[in-house]
Amino acid sequence: MNPVNAIKEVQGKNKSMLCVGLDLDQKRLPSEYATAIKGWYDFATAIIDATKDIVCAYKPNLAFFEERGPEGISLLEKIIQKIPDDIVVIADGKRGDIGNTAAHYAKAMFERMNADWVTINPYMGYDSIRPFLDHKGKGAFILCLTSNPGSRDFQLMHVVNKPIYMYVAEKVAYWNKEDNLGLVVGATHPEQLADIRRVAGDMPILIPGVGAQGGDLEKAVTYGTDNFKHPAIINVSRSVLYASSGSDFADAARAEVQKLNSIINSLREKDNKENQTE
Amino acid sequence: MNPVNAIKEVQGKNKSMLCVGLDLDQKRLPSEYATAIKGWYDFATAIIDATKDIVCAYKPNLAFFEERGPEGISLLEKIIQKIPDDIVVIADGKRGDIGNTAAHYAKAMFERMNADWVTINPYMGYDSIRPFLDHKGKGAFILCLTSNPGSRDFQLMHVVNKPIYMYVAEKVAYWNKEDNLGLVVGATHPEQLADIRRVAGDMPILIPGVGAQGGDLEKAVTYGTDNFKHPAIINVSRSVLYASSGSDFADAARAEVQKLNSIINSLREKDNKENQTE
Repeated sequence: MNPVNAIKEVQGKNKSMLCVGLDLDQKRLPSEYATAIKGWYDFATAIIDATKDIVCAYKPNLAFFEERGPEGISLLEKIIQKIPDDIVVIADGKRGDIGNTAAHYAKAMFERMNADWVTINPYMGYDSIRPFLDHKGKGAFILCLTSNPGSRDFQLMHVVNKPIYMYVAEKVAYWNKEDNLGLVVGATHPEQLADIRRVAGDMPILIPGVGAQGGDLEKAVTYGTDNFKHPAIINVSRSVLYASSGSDFADAARAEVQKLNSIINSLREKDNKENQTE
Repeated sequence: MNPVNAIKEVQGKNKSMLCVGLDLDQKRLPSEYATAIKGWYDFATAIIDATKDIVCAYKPNLAFFEERGPEGISLLEKIIQKIPDDIVVIADGKRGDIGNTAAHYAKAMFERMNADWVTINPYMGYDSIRPFLDHKGKGAFILCLTSNPGSRDFQLMHVVNKPIYMYVAEKVAYWNKEDNLGLVVGATHPEQLADIRRVAGDMPILIPGVGAQGGDLEKAVTYGTDNFKHPAIINVSRSVLYASSGSDFADAARAEVQKLNSIINSLREKDNKENQTE
């Protein structure tokens, strides 16, 4: 199946635009799960079991697993196996390298880890992205305008009369011949998100930065989808994983996801009603 | 020791500016080494044994190891253990993520893998670089102008009156308060390398793109060091690793490194003589 259609399908089925980021952090996990690899596995699978019918995607953040060496990578592979097939897995590694190397990253994440989508850094240009597009049924989110303070350092600079991130968005839209590319745009830049949505066609936008980073959920959803006309995925990591630091973490995670889903779905209903009365 | 001084010291001791990239590729390795993890280990350690007194650094390319999953990462850790302590290990992963995540990548590469330097993508700005600077004695090469065709897509765009890569070079020079940053500049852009060297102060420049990618060695060396006034590291990967596809691969690798060293050292001597007669 085309990877964008796979996103749309699970979003409809689970009535959810939410992605839960799997940022497993020793310092944040309930103490009985914090240290052993088995604890991480139990924590992650409990989060997945508690939320898999109410999210559209999981996004493992590779840094947290790499910090634990080979055991961490093995754990990540096992966690991905526990994610139901129709839920989208986004391997968040923000890789980007010359073509020959990028081909190996693509194999690592699509074949070895069995991810459906990856995140890629565009700074090295088209040949760093191209090898990811050769994998049928898989997709790539390209960093466009990120949610962090450092996004000001280069992404917001103006090239002639446009910020660099707009060039990135336009280039990626042009490269998107097979409907398998998307963009990463942080919720902390809502006005710019609306501009990017205008040039992004029907590409899905992966939106981090709601929650711990302070992005506005309502703007992220309505601007990121242009009032529900195009696909977007709202990522939440720490606010879900660490909704409770006690043994009820999984129930608390589910309650947080449901709360966010109902906010988003009420925005959608409001939008539908307004369209009907027009 | 300061990480730039560590580079200078081993370059002096081994009379070499060369870094050998450890891009272990199943398709390129001699057939008896190509498949098993043990074969990769034997190949890499034979290359290291054959060249460790005539290079200044090794640069494992993480993509090739990640493609093999947890076993690949475990192998990489074992290979790094075989590299003598005074030779610089550059973990080439081109990571770059928001501060909280970058801190975990820094731990993965500096603490877990025991790398001395890493490569980082600057697109996400300062907070994606900052956590790497907190590791004393370690250093980070920031992608500036890369050697691949895609470097044209964004890096060569002009911001007001300068190309983006010059802003990257100037920002990194400004951030370099602790003498632990460097730049990555491809040998395929020799004129621009000279411009970057002018704003880079005494930062080391890691220069890939000589060899398989067609960059000019003489220009890379003289422009990258400004006639041997500043540190640079010339990376070679495929042309050394696969100098022979037979069982004499290690001897062939050594011969190739010696050939390149003598070209570089004769440039240095020529430069010294010219300076003495001036």
